[in-house]
Amino acid sequence: MGAGGWFITFEGIDGSGKSTQARRLAERLPGAVLTREPGGSAGAEEIRRLVLNGETGRWSPETELLLFTAARRDHLEKLIEPRLSEGRTVICDRFADSTRIYQGATRGDLRDKVDALHALMIGREPDLTFIIDMDPATALARGMAREGAESRFESFGLELQETVRAGFLALAAQFPERCVVIDGNRDADAVAEDIAARVTVET
Amino acid sequence: MGAGGWFITFEGIDGSGKSTQARRLAERLPGAVLTREPGGSAGAEEIRRLVLNGETGRWSPETELLLFTAARRDHLEKLIEPRLSEGRTVICDRFADSTRIYQGATRGDLRDKVDALHALMIGREPDLTFIIDMDPATALARGMAREGAESRFESFGLELQETVRAGFLALAAQFPERCVVIDGNRDADAVAEDIAARVTVET
Repeated sequence: MGAGGWFITFEGIDGSGKSTQARRLAERLPGAVLTREPGGSAGAEEIRRLVLNGETGRWSPETELLLFTAARRDHLEKLIEPRLSEGRTVICDRFADSTRIYQGATRGDLRDKVDALHALMIGREPDLTFIIDMDPATALARGMAREGAESRFESFGLELQETVRAGFLALAAQFPERCVVIDGNRDADAVAEDIAARVTVET
Repeated sequence: MGAGGWFITFEGIDGSGKSTQARRLAERLPGAVLTREPGGSAGAEEIRRLVLNGETGRWSPETELLLFTAARRDHLEKLIEPRLSEGRTVICDRFADSTRIYQGATRGDLRDKVDALHALMIGREPDLTFIIDMDPATALARGMAREGAESRFESFGLELQETVRAGFLALAAQFPERCVVIDGNRDADAVAEDIAARVTVET
């Protein structure tokens, strides 16, 4: 921890373009490391596969929360903290805010457990979080066009996306010192310019 | 939780004979379910393989603690609690006490985190715990004669076994209402008779 590089995370509903924007920001910043959750380190990627493959509902919300926290702890120890210590910027596509929303609100009423577990075993917040906000109907249409084993997280439909969007906006209000809400209802170039301008100002 | 069957666990240093004694007690009690940790349910066995295979030290003590807790949560939800609810006795070879000793004391000074995580995500104690106590030199000789991918937990030698033994005896003093220390320095038949007599008295 300590001084070191900046830790920047991207959050938002599925299909919001956050992965694209995380990559585009990483391309602009010399030496920046681009990573993602769940996963990001060798061990965390193994845990990711364990959680995301197989039948929906094979893990309870509580077990899933513990597995994602184990993956995050490994990612933090093996990749994020070492790179930050070298003074590099680390850009992460999803981090603890996603757990606060997905495990905390949409898979049961676990927010208290999510917060307690984060405080106990993670204890690290990003320096800067971009929440890419956009219309769920548009985002869902984008998400439907993609494939993959992880599609079950995108299969709950519009109502879930509305809940998640509201959750992220509430987080932005809860953590105003690090969260910046970005209007994602624009073309990707315009969004990327907006984000780059804010990083210049913030850092 | 609630009424239901009795939840009985066996703890002790490697080579103490606890697995044998757990099996022998299960054979005596009609309808008893014999299980073990880490593992015990399909999901927990997958997590067990993830933790125990691969290089020693691939997981930090904290990550390992989270993974074992995820496995325990799955085991509790999918096997232990459902069987107890049917009124069956569940006999488990190792449970949270092993985590208190191995992750709490021998792999770093994590006991506070172990206890907080248990309270947050598990919250269940056995009704009765047999701690099979024996001379570490004898137990280690027994353990050396066995094989398996999990031998790294048995490869730390006599000093570790002494620490673990002391840890289990301290737990017995901390939880006297459920812990019974059994002298394991006897032949297996004598130990089994001793345990069976105590279950009759206790239940």
